[in-house]
Amino acid sequence: MSEELNNKPNKANLLIEALPYIKEFHHKKIMIKYGGHAMIDEEAMNSTARDTVLLKYVGMEPIVVHGGGPEITRSMNKMGKEPRFIKGLRITDEETMDIVTMVLVGKISTEIVSKIGIHGGKASGISGKDSQLIVASKKAPHRITDEETGEEHEIDLGLVGQIDSLNTEIVQMFTDNDYIPVISPIGVDDNGNTLNLNADTVAGEVASKMNSEKLIILTDVPGVLKDPNDPKSLIKKIKVDEVDDLIKDGTISGGMIPKVETCVKAIEGGVKSAHIIDGRVKHSLLLEIFTTKGIGTMITL
Amino acid sequence: MSEELNNKPNKANLLIEALPYIKEFHHKKIMIKYGGHAMIDEEAMNSTARDTVLLKYVGMEPIVVHGGGPEITRSMNKMGKEPRFIKGLRITDEETMDIVTMVLVGKISTEIVSKIGIHGGKASGISGKDSQLIVASKKAPHRITDEETGEEHEIDLGLVGQIDSLNTEIVQMFTDNDYIPVISPIGVDDNGNTLNLNADTVAGEVASKMNSEKLIILTDVPGVLKDPNDPKSLIKKIKVDEVDDLIKDGTISGGMIPKVETCVKAIEGGVKSAHIIDGRVKHSLLLEIFTTKGIGTMITL
Amino acid sequence: MSEELNNKPNKANLLIEALPYIKEFHHKKIMIKYGGHAMIDEEAMNSTARDTVLLKYVGMEPIVVHGGGPEITRSMNKMGKEPRFIKGLRITDEETMDIVTMVLVGKISTEIVSKIGIHGGKASGISGKDSQLIVASKKAPHRITDEETGEEHEIDLGLVGQIDSLNTEIVQMFTDNDYIPVISPIGVDDNGNTLNLNADTVAGEVASKMNSEKLIILTDVPGVLKDPNDPKSLIKKIKVDEVDDLIKDGTISGGMIPKVETCVKAIEGGVKSAHIIDGRVKHSLLLEIFTTKGIGTMITL
Amino acid sequence: MSEELNNKPNKANLLIEALPYIKEFHHKKIMIKYGGHAMIDEEAMNSTARDTVLLKYVGMEPIVVHGGGPEITRSMNKMGKEPRFIKGLRITDEETMDIVTMVLVGKISTEIVSKIGIHGGKASGISGKDSQLIVASKKAPHRITDEETGEEHEIDLGLVGQIDSLNTEIVQMFTDNDYIPVISPIGVDDNGNTLNLNADTVAGEVASKMNSEKLIILTDVPGVLKDPNDPKSLIKKIKVDEVDDLIKDGTISGGMIPKVETCVKAIEGGVKSAHIIDGRVKHSLLLEIFTTKGIGTMITL
Amino acid sequence: MSEELNNKPNKANLLIEALPYIKEFHHKKIMIKYGGHAMIDEEAMNSTARDTVLLKYVGMEPIVVHGGGPEITRSMNKMGKEPRFIKGLRITDEETMDIVTMVLVGKISTEIVSKIGIHGGKASGISGKDSQLIVASKKAPHRITDEETGEEHEIDLGLVGQIDSLNTEIVQMFTDNDYIPVISPIGVDDNGNTLNLNADTVAGEVASKMNSEKLIILTDVPGVLKDPNDPKSLIKKIKVDEVDDLIKDGTISGGMIPKVETCVKAIEGGVKSAHIIDGRVKHSLLLEIFTTKGIGTMITL
Amino acid sequence: MSEELNNKPNKANLLIEALPYIKEFHHKKIMIKYGGHAMIDEEAMNSTARDTVLLKYVGMEPIVVHGGGPEITRSMNKMGKEPRFIKGLRITDEETMDIVTMVLVGKISTEIVSKIGIHGGKASGISGKDSQLIVASKKAPHRITDEETGEEHEIDLGLVGQIDSLNTEIVQMFTDNDYIPVISPIGVDDNGNTLNLNADTVAGEVASKMNSEKLIILTDVPGVLKDPNDPKSLIKKIKVDEVDDLIKDGTISGGMIPKVETCVKAIEGGVKSAHIIDGRVKHSLLLEIFTTKGIGTMITL
Repeated sequence: MSEELNNKPNKANLLIEALPYIKEFHHKKIMIKYGGHAMIDEEAMNSTARDTVLLKYVGMEPIVVHGGGPEITRSMNKMGKEPRFIKGLRITDEETMDIVTMVLVGKISTEIVSKIGIHGGKASGISGKDSQLIVASKKAPHRITDEETGEEHEIDLGLVGQIDSLNTEIVQMFTDNDYIPVISPIGVDDNGNTLNLNADTVAGEVASKMNSEKLIILTDVPGVLKDPNDPKSLIKKIKVDEVDDLIKDGTISGGMIPKVETCVKAIEGGVKSAHIIDGRVKHSLLLEIFTTKGIGTMITL
Repeated sequence: MSEELNNKPNKANLLIEALPYIKEFHHKKIMIKYGGHAMIDEEAMNSTARDTVLLKYVGMEPIVVHGGGPEITRSMNKMGKEPRFIKGLRITDEETMDIVTMVLVGKISTEIVSKIGIHGGKASGISGKDSQLIVASKKAPHRITDEETGEEHEIDLGLVGQIDSLNTEIVQMFTDNDYIPVISPIGVDDNGNTLNLNADTVAGEVASKMNSEKLIILTDVPGVLKDPNDPKSLIKKIKVDEVDDLIKDGTISGGMIPKVETCVKAIEGGVKSAHIIDGRVKHSLLLEIFTTKGIGTMITL
Repeated sequence: MSEELNNKPNKANLLIEALPYIKEFHHKKIMIKYGGHAMIDEEAMNSTARDTVLLKYVGMEPIVVHGGGPEITRSMNKMGKEPRFIKGLRITDEETMDIVTMVLVGKISTEIVSKIGIHGGKASGISGKDSQLIVASKKAPHRITDEETGEEHEIDLGLVGQIDSLNTEIVQMFTDNDYIPVISPIGVDDNGNTLNLNADTVAGEVASKMNSEKLIILTDVPGVLKDPNDPKSLIKKIKVDEVDDLIKDGTISGGMIPKVETCVKAIEGGVKSAHIIDGRVKHSLLLEIFTTKGIGTMITL
Repeated sequence: MSEELNNKPNKANLLIEALPYIKEFHHKKIMIKYGGHAMIDEEAMNSTARDTVLLKYVGMEPIVVHGGGPEITRSMNKMGKEPRFIKGLRITDEETMDIVTMVLVGKISTEIVSKIGIHGGKASGISGKDSQLIVASKKAPHRITDEETGEEHEIDLGLVGQIDSLNTEIVQMFTDNDYIPVISPIGVDDNGNTLNLNADTVAGEVASKMNSEKLIILTDVPGVLKDPNDPKSLIKKIKVDEVDDLIKDGTISGGMIPKVETCVKAIEGGVKSAHIIDGRVKHSLLLEIFTTKGIGTMITL
Repeated sequence: MSEELNNKPNKANLLIEALPYIKEFHHKKIMIKYGGHAMIDEEAMNSTARDTVLLKYVGMEPIVVHGGGPEITRSMNKMGKEPRFIKGLRITDEETMDIVTMVLVGKISTEIVSKIGIHGGKASGISGKDSQLIVASKKAPHRITDEETGEEHEIDLGLVGQIDSLNTEIVQMFTDNDYIPVISPIGVDDNGNTLNLNADTVAGEVASKMNSEKLIILTDVPGVLKDPNDPKSLIKKIKVDEVDDLIKDGTISGGMIPKVETCVKAIEGGVKSAHIIDGRVKHSLLLEIFTTKGIGTMITL
Repeated sequence: MSEELNNKPNKANLLIEALPYIKEFHHKKIMIKYGGHAMIDEEAMNSTARDTVLLKYVGMEPIVVHGGGPEITRSMNKMGKEPRFIKGLRITDEETMDIVTMVLVGKISTEIVSKIGIHGGKASGISGKDSQLIVASKKAPHRITDEETGEEHEIDLGLVGQIDSLNTEIVQMFTDNDYIPVISPIGVDDNGNTLNLNADTVAGEVASKMNSEKLIILTDVPGVLKDPNDPKSLIKKIKVDEVDDLIKDGTISGGMIPKVETCVKAIEGGVKSAHIIDGRVKHSLLLEIFTTKGIGTMITL
């Protein structure tokens, strides 16, 4: 028998190995937060989109929420507008909000939709403003204590919002009709104003509301690490009730805290498992879903 | 009987007067091209959105296509990018195309969606890239004859496209589920590139493909005028086979020519009537639909 | 701008004014009891039917119950049969019941159906006998005390019934298929006998069973009046728990008592509001539904 | 084995014998024209209704059209109105039309509906006015030649109509929802006027439009007889192309001519077979459908 | 009137007599256990199948479970394999199980399906292995006390199973699509092994799970007899709470005990009535369902 | 990065490589003829079943037809019945037909159904007798010329049939409800007799009738070979119009002729491609579908 034939069964074996995962997640909603490296360039976006389409074709129902911080900052710079942050939150005046919306909805979302289309999926972009998908309200101002004087003052974050309620009927319509919805993280308040939202939070809350099986957050780190300097120190599984201790002892720290908290909230809201994975690894999405060990950190009840 | 009571019947009478129009257009698709004054400011957009929602509530199925030239030019200026036109067509390099998309999809469309939401309608924005709604290809370069030398040369318009085919399944999904789709006039080519399209043309072609009853183009003129300087010289009705003569004798001229040609093509494609109306008149949409005479120019077979 | 154009916006404005009401009652069932002046002649019936069709076209689901006392009396006279009443209830022997049925089902209902058809609605007449819509039983005899002797005796009302149960499946089938059902107030007992029913009561009970939003009773008075001789003394709103006092102090008296009691029972059965309005005012139905103040008396929880 | 047991198998055998007919007509529409003896009294109506319900329960879709001449005449007499006929057609002035409608829709139809209900069927009465079921126009006046003078004059039949078109959507809605529709033979003209129609004709035309399998006309004769004085001379089967000869040679004569012509027209309109049967024979409907020989005259292609 | 006509009404009368039963069991599921004489030969099977098809055509939803002991024994003999039983249960080694499956699924079921097809029904055979319809597990070994020594030993029954759970989705799919499912009484365990099941038990449990109206067991005795030697001593009705006493006093004994217990369990599981009838009587199925007295023993709450 | 991680991307890459095939055959019917080695033992059947389930889970609609010659012969031997063949066709007397049915339907089909169930698919066995799926008639006797005498005589093949018509409604019901139908190749004639059919033929004809995308025949050879003794001489692709020449020149010979002819007929009946593949190669089904070159012979238009 030719060498070619000898090799082929391996390929088929791999498909067969994937079968239990395919069965387990058949007709299950998989919420994927696109962020970081996974959206960094043409090639990365193509790869992420292709993987998402594959999930759809093997019977899952992927839903995408995307971020876009770096691109927003780039566009602001181009328009001669200086970005300002406070504790990681972008201070958002009206002009900034306009730019945020244009970049998220008009640039990033249409690009993702386009990439999914190229790979054979049917996608459509929606923002939180579409049929009042995300109703939000302005966040309370940030309180800051002047370290020298001890005086407290407030810093208004501008048009930064928190989610009040979700009308996911439109998302359901898309998944029911075999579309992959791509959600931009902006909300609308009762007066029709646009508010800037945290994309991870949007992904988590929509995942809960839609009874998603999984919430997968694509990041630029391998996951939660015991030793932040050692990528091999990855913690593969965390139980929800271990999180507090891991925060206290500093294992989960910095920007990882809100991500893990979003995961915990999603799980408490009914999502079966939440995953923080490394978008820099090729096909990380597939590896996390289709292998026993996965490649990132999985948080469960 | 009190004066109040005496007045009230007038109101009810007006509703009753509207009944024949409501009946005639029940469950009929009405394609509305938003443009010009109708989108000029907060108040105008609110008014147009409110009228559109009313159409929905009395049983029609409005579909919106919007333009956005002035806003695009404004944004380009802000970004220090000089807009260039040739015969009314915007020369669109990649950077310009990015700005066009961001403004159309990310700014104008989300605003219209938001306004419709405020007035009680369910809207969702889609661009021609969503599930390959509008497949387009690059227009041939423009040929120009140097008046002095008589030499011909070509000017490449860049990413300006012409419509090749439409996949209106997504638009149908929206109207079937009681949504008002808001379409941004950009297309996607076979390689996933974005192309800039003429909004009137998009409105006309989608209207044909969706078997719309009416195509209504909101402009900043009263309609087709016999004497362009006399707004009272409005031509109320034009038959499709009269159009050629009206162009030849100069009655239809300038920017009105492509608009009328779009109307003619739509009617030949099955739309029952096309209307060019004055978006500056308050509630022009309702007046055109709900009064016998209408307020603009109606083109029919 | 021409005078004509100046006037037109008023018309559109009125449609826009109606929008909030249209939205509020979209897909809501509106039970309308036709009676009195609203059915008095060709013109009145046409007007009432046209208003009913309008409600249908702007998205409500009207259901009609009609009375017919005067017409029955007229037909009985024609046939040389003397009508007899006791406390407002028609004493109904078999021959009378035949006439009642023929007039209600065969004359009044077909006329209403016909008028609704002329104005573009799809209507169909049903009686309480159609697929056992209204199962009823004979009312107990009326007890009367002879004022002179103090003796009590009973007067048998004949085939006058009270409602035992409703099978509204057929009504639902009609509204689900965009028909306006027109219900004649006769019932059927367990042996298949026909029974004469009070039309207001039928309207109220069917409204409750069908989860109607509104019960509107068309009468020949402006509503509940503080001073029965002063039509300007109309009470616009009555709370259900104010009704007892208004009956005790005589404000609600005579024939108005059972009407108000029907309204109260309907509201307790889940109907949101009940309205007693003046069918003599043109378009009273529309004025009550589409204006803030309404024109009659509204009863609510 | 007991005598009782010995007898029982006969019963079961009969059910088994009926099986081929049940299968053949499963889900087939059977149009039944009620007339003559079958409606003559309480007992006859009960029997006819019970048979109709049986057809429904064994899977057929019966549709009923009823006549009512004798009852109309009786009611007219009661009201002191003299009935007048010309060549079998009732001259119908407006007052007569009112009586006709009241009797057909208000009396006969409600009684049939009631009887079907008692026997466990769901019925609902409709007339040709319900949602424009039967659109008709006035018949041309009758021309009569004075036998003495040879002069011709016209006699206006009044509100006697001929069918122009049918909107059977409502009938379909009923059969689709397991109702037995009971149709009264009156029509509506373009101005909403009621017109008196021949019940046989209505049955035939609705049967064609609804793609009925059978048209069964209940009469007071055994069927078409070779010798009108000998009930044993029944012709069991007639081919459509034999009809002309049978009329010419006088076998089919008098009131039988229009009945047979209605049958022929129905068959030409797609009905598989038409049956003229004797409503005086108990269960004639079942005997015609469930026995090989039938009991009346069957007309086929 | 001819003699023929005189006879015919009897036939129609019988259909009319059946009407109340037809109505009562319309759209009701009727579980029929085929066994004994009813399957003994070509003619008997034809008769049973024809009766089953009749039930389907008059609106019921029959489901068939069949046994097959004698046929299995015959086939085993043919293959030179000696059948062994212990207390009525077939000791089932692997080879025997193969034969059991082949006979039940491959011979008896296909024959029943074929017979139903010939008589105009749509049938399809399923076993408990189809889409895991019947999940079962091996029965515990039988304990036997040696009468002489008083020693206990166990006898392994082999592949004899008891039902653990049912997935009746496939049965529902068949009845919803107008098929008559024919179920062979074998089950599947968690490892995919086939297990031999008692057909009466399968019939009873599927009847409960499917909310059947009736469970009818065809046997070779008239039903439960007071005096087993006197077929006229049939007990027509037994209440569930009388069963214990009847077993204690020996009225119900031997092979009748498990049958009656299956009936009791089915009734406790929601089946309205269970019937043990004599398959040797022609049309016993119809006689039991369509006559007031029935022909066998009916067990109810 | 760990070695493990290095390997993983290969796995994901293979899934991604499969994507175009998954997309191409999404919701397409794939007819698979099980035969030969693929059914030879427990392990082979498990493997084939698992592959079939995978096809289902990645969105295809597999339909299975199985053969069973060797098993039938084995069972006949066990029962002391000598199998006889003429030109590859089994001479089938009634007793043989009984054994054939028992083995195909009762043994092989239930085993396949069971195996598919174990691997997570929902399967159900049907034979050509289920709701008259395959209506067949007896084949004409075989004519044989005595080589010595030159005399012709006929040999009756017994109950060997040819397909007359297919009622695939039941197959469609299964695929519509996400079941994998497993079809046994027996047919039913007009009298309800069972007929033995060629499994390849059944697969081909059902594939055509069901508009299958592919017909895949599992055999025990690599496909069509140029040199029958050299498995490396496989012909990968054959056009339908090349078949005649390949038969004439002896490339296609013996038992391969009817297989190829079945493929040709299927393609002429609308199947897009037919494949003869080697069931001895592990996962041959997946390799044929999911690799560009495939592993067997593909026949197309």
